[in-house]
Amino acid sequence: MSFDPATLTFTSDGLIPAIAQDAATGEVLMMAWMTAEAVTRTLETGRVTYWSRSRQAFWVKGESSGHVQKLVDFRVDCDRDCLLVLVDQTGPACHTNRRSCFYTAVRAGEEVELMTPVED
Amino acid sequence: MSFDPATLTFTSDGLIPAIAQDAATGEVLMMAWMTAEAVTRTLETGRVTYWSRSRQAFWVKGESSGHVQKLVDFRVDCDRDCLLVLVDQTGPACHTNRRSCFYTAVRAGEEVELMTPVED
Repeated sequence: MSFDPATLTFTSDGLIPAIAQDAATGEVLMMAWMTAEAVTRTLETGRVTYWSRSRQAFWVKGESSGHVQKLVDFRVDCDRDCLLVLVDQTGPACHTNRRSCFYTAVRAGEEVELMTPVED
Repeated sequence: MSFDPATLTFTSDGLIPAIAQDAATGEVLMMAWMTAEAVTRTLETGRVTYWSRSRQAFWVKGESSGHVQKLVDFRVDCDRDCLLVLVDQTGPACHTNRRSCFYTAVRAGEEVELMTPVED
C-alpha cells in the first residue's frame, strides 16, 4: 500500500512525535516532532527533518551543528500517531553534546547522569 | 539529586510522552503517556503505569492482558519533557499482539508490514 502522510494522526497543532533510534546500536537518541510536510521531506531527502516548535520552522537535524541523521528506516506505529526513525547519527544527537538526550536515569529516587558531553 | 516528578515538563493536559524500550534487545516497543502520578506509581511499583487518554484512567500495562512491563531503568531527557523506560516485556507490547507497535515500515513509498501477530 502506498504511504500517504495525510493518513497519520496529528495533534491539534498538526504534529506527530518522532523517536530517533540509532540503527546500528539500538540506542534511543531523542524524541522530537514532525509535521506532515516534515515527514515528506524526511522520506524524500533521507535527511531526518523535524518541526521546531520553539522556532516554528523546519529543522533539518544537524544543519547547523553537523550532527546529521541519515534515515535508515521509517516506521509508523499501530495507531498511526507516533513515528520511529532509525538513523545513522553523525556525532552526538543531543544539543548538550551527549550521544543521547536520555542521559539522566532515576535510580532509588535519585537522578544519576549516565553520559558526559562528547569532547569536540 | 533527588528526583521529583513535578520537575518534569508536562503538556497542558498534564501528560508526558513515555517511550518503552526492551531492556534486553533494545527494540522500541511503544509510546504512551504518563501523568506525574503515573510516573510516581511506575517508580514505586516497578510496574510501568501509563495514563489512558481514551479511558481517562491509569493503565497498568498488562493488567488485563498479562503483557506486563517490569521497569528495568527509568530515563529523563535533556528537556525533561520526554521519558524512556527500559522494560522487561512479557509477551507482545502491542494491542494487535505484535511484539512492537512499530511494525509498519515505509520503504520506497510503500507500507511494509514487518511483524505478524504472535500466536496465543
